[in-house]
Amino acid sequence: MSDREYFQDYMPGDVCFGCGSKNPVGLHIHSYWEGDHAVCQWRPDERHQGWAGLTCGGILATLIDCHCMATAMATAIRQENRSLSSSPHYRFATGSLNVRYLKPTPIDTPLQIRAHVTEIKHNRKFSLDCALYAHDEKTVEGSVVAFLVYRSDQPEQTNPQFGLHTNR
Amino acid sequence: MSDREYFQDYMPGDVCFGCGSKNPVGLHIHSYWEGDHAVCQWRPDERHQGWAGLTCGGILATLIDCHCMATAMATAIRQENRSLSSSPHYRFATGSLNVRYLKPTPIDTPLQIRAHVTEIKHNRKFSLDCALYAHDEKTVEGSVVAFLVYRSDQPEQTNPQFGLHTNR
Repeated sequence: MSDREYFQDYMPGDVCFGCGSKNPVGLHIHSYWEGDHAVCQWRPDERHQGWAGLTCGGILATLIDCHCMATAMATAIRQENRSLSSSPHYRFATGSLNVRYLKPTPIDTPLQIRAHVTEIKHNRKFSLDCALYAHDEKTVEGSVVAFLVYRSDQPEQTNPQFGLHTNR
Repeated sequence: MSDREYFQDYMPGDVCFGCGSKNPVGLHIHSYWEGDHAVCQWRPDERHQGWAGLTCGGILATLIDCHCMATAMATAIRQENRSLSSSPHYRFATGSLNVRYLKPTPIDTPLQIRAHVTEIKHNRKFSLDCALYAHDEKTVEGSVVAFLVYRSDQPEQTNPQFGLHTNR
């Protein structure tokens, strides 16, 4: 048993391929705090292969993307010294995703993804660094920009369907 | 009926989540030449959502990654004025994947992904630009670096399991 608080339990995207709890073929990732880093442990299986025995680059990009959006949300809440369950709720969307594949990532071992926010501009644009490890070896690095696109106390401000990134 | 020649029919990765024909939950993309651009038409469904009604950013990254690896392979063969079925066969692996999400990408329409090689260094490092369109509007851009890591006439040169990117 664990008393970890998972970021995704406070996010509304339950259909998301990467992090939604209700997607039948999704990755179902869970992210949590470990000190100042947000961590995700995830185990690939044969459906997630690229070349035989290796994890697909697109799946690795998905892990980084979804983990970083959750990390941005959790960081924004943490900065305000309040709990993930408190209001207002925030939603972030990916502005850019840069992934560097350093080595092949095997399919036969749990992966660990670690992320942290490196810069926040205008309380809206969050930059994150991310690294993915297999067998304690870093195989992938990522740099991600997340935009705050919705906050529940200002619902009129944003609409994820339209004009998502118009005010960068 | 179409007489298009699909790049993936000449690639060995049939388990790949993005482009493998035998992955039960994979995206099963097909890429082909349309003039100087490599094109992929692909239709998302509800399994590929991020937020409800929108295509997941990680799925979009996967489309770009797999389509660009196929495009690098087909470009290398085309440069040698020979057919995709001729030898030697080439395999490319992703070095880096940079994706910029310009607008939300809806889930209710076919997507078109277009890519082309912009630079080739040392016959081994291929840079590509890629764009993804929904309803004829560009929603995502990508810049990808692909490395030639295997050629069937020099099988001893490379091994995708080990030292994939050691000689950049």
